[in-house]
Amino acid sequence: MDHKELINEPGDVVDEMPDGMVAAHHDYVRRLDGLEVLVRADAPVDGKVGVVSGGGSGHEPTHAGYLGAGMLDGAAAGEMFTSPTADQLGEMIRVCDGGSGVLCVVKNYEGDVMNFDTGAEMAAMEGVEVEQVVVDDDVAIEDSLYTSGRRGVCGTIFVHKAAGAKAAAGADLDDVKRVAETAVDNVGTMGTALTSCVTPEKGEPGTERVDHMPADEIADHLTEAVLADLGTEAGTEVATIVNGMGGTPRSELYVVNRRLQEVLDDRGIETWDAWVGDYMTSLDMMGCSITVLELDEELKELLAAPADTPALTVA
Amino acid sequence: MDHKELINEPGDVVDEMPDGMVAAHHDYVRRLDGLEVLVRADAPVDGKVGVVSGGGSGHEPTHAGYLGAGMLDGAAAGEMFTSPTADQLGEMIRVCDGGSGVLCVVKNYEGDVMNFDTGAEMAAMEGVEVEQVVVDDDVAIEDSLYTSGRRGVCGTIFVHKAAGAKAAAGADLDDVKRVAETAVDNVGTMGTALTSCVTPEKGEPGTERVDHMPADEIADHLTEAVLADLGTEAGTEVATIVNGMGGTPRSELYVVNRRLQEVLDDRGIETWDAWVGDYMTSLDMMGCSITVLELDEELKELLAAPADTPALTVA
Repeated sequence: MDHKELINEPGDVVDEMPDGMVAAHHDYVRRLDGLEVLVRADAPVDGKVGVVSGGGSGHEPTHAGYLGAGMLDGAAAGEMFTSPTADQLGEMIRVCDGGSGVLCVVKNYEGDVMNFDTGAEMAAMEGVEVEQVVVDDDVAIEDSLYTSGRRGVCGTIFVHKAAGAKAAAGADLDDVKRVAETAVDNVGTMGTALTSCVTPEKGEPGTERVDHMPADEIADHLTEAVLADLGTEAGTEVATIVNGMGGTPRSELYVVNRRLQEVLDDRGIETWDAWVGDYMTSLDMMGCSITVLELDEELKELLAAPADTPALTVA
Repeated sequence: MDHKELINEPGDVVDEMPDGMVAAHHDYVRRLDGLEVLVRADAPVDGKVGVVSGGGSGHEPTHAGYLGAGMLDGAAAGEMFTSPTADQLGEMIRVCDGGSGVLCVVKNYEGDVMNFDTGAEMAAMEGVEVEQVVVDDDVAIEDSLYTSGRRGVCGTIFVHKAAGAKAAAGADLDDVKRVAETAVDNVGTMGTALTSCVTPEKGEPGTERVDHMPADEIADHLTEAVLADLGTEAGTEVATIVNGMGGTPRSELYVVNRRLQEVLDDRGIETWDAWVGDYMTSLDMMGCSITVLELDEELKELLAAPADTPALTVA
């Protein structure tokens, strides 16, 4: 099967996509002039802690799909699978400061971490109070070509939700950072790619490939890896994500979720909420990841709090 | 690129998927014993007109993803790309009757229409008042191997939303049917598949294939076809969907939406709401469709009304 792209020029996707997002969701988002940065239409929200994120393009709806009340105030997109620049990030942080400071939720890739650091310094020089949390939920990878330590993957969405809800509730910057760190400390993700994706401009190093294996075996493998890493015990309440990487049909994600919930049930782990869908993709890659977040009462309250964004609505 | 499926046995997907949906969304849905039918967890809703749909599997989140308050009460799934049986449909209609009758929203495929007719008769024999609307929004196809007249495709989701909102507002069966027919009469869709999808069990006849063409040209082609068919005039308010068929990245759908909105704007057509996402897929097929619904005040009110379902939330 050939990859057939719905693009104009490969180099234009990262510029045209945000305009298409604004055209669809102008109630939610606006674009910063000349930058691949989208912010909440009403940013900055006066007095509220800003919560921002960013990363390479190609992982939609991450992150701009999560802009809106109860989640993110700003989302910066780099080129395909490439970190956003420090200039982009600095400007985003500045624009999203409503006077109470800004929390940056950073996925653990070297370029992202480095450029967020520089961007934060630039904003701080203009008087913005900036804090940062680094998400490193991928239990599979300790070090890779692009990361030092574990990568930040789909567990990041839970961090967005928890931090965004805390900020919406009027918490101060330290408190928003605290809940984001609690989420980071209690989340793990394991994924498997069944194909590699094809980028408009270039490839990227392959990830684990598994020959045809029944979905239940794959689900078992991913689930065991996450639970072992977290050390999740019977009686723990968790929220889960079965995340599609872009090319896997929704029906198959539900097949995986069926098995995930069986395994959790067998171990006496209580699923409090289960998400199934494409939350963080890699273009058209086939495969999925399983994320488990161990919950306390505060995280449950924050996950259940209202959110109104293009990609996630909690009523 | 090989297709790598996340399944166990091919014949088991249609049975395992609904269990996975229930495991994820038990607040929303329950499964009818021994059937590939999901209904709202609280079905039947006493005194409310039931709104149900159904069709072949492989088009997720259609239809079970739209079960919940403000949309559907029942969704029947056939085998992959195969109509649900009359027995399934009859039982679904019976279960979803809260005493005020049931509206069936049927996509125009011969098997679907025939089996919904028989299912409706079976339910009617048990005293259920049943009405039916047939959605035929695909402007591309007049007759095909499986259809007589135009196919029902992504415009069906607008029909679900309008009918579901009207039923939730307490309207009677005739009135729910009337708004569904208004939506059917004012919606058009044109799609293009960039690859064919691969089914677990069998192939299906190919659809139009377009060699690499810029996204803007594809968007122009699809948009012009729909607008010409509807005869949409300047000043008309519309709702639009850029629908992904499963394998096309979200970023590319936004590129298409950007162009769609430019074309509408150039023609003085006013976009009142724009949806972008995978609403009705064909497994991992790459490509997209464009749907345009011409609006009146009542349809605007119904689209904006609350809905709370796994795949669509309007707060």
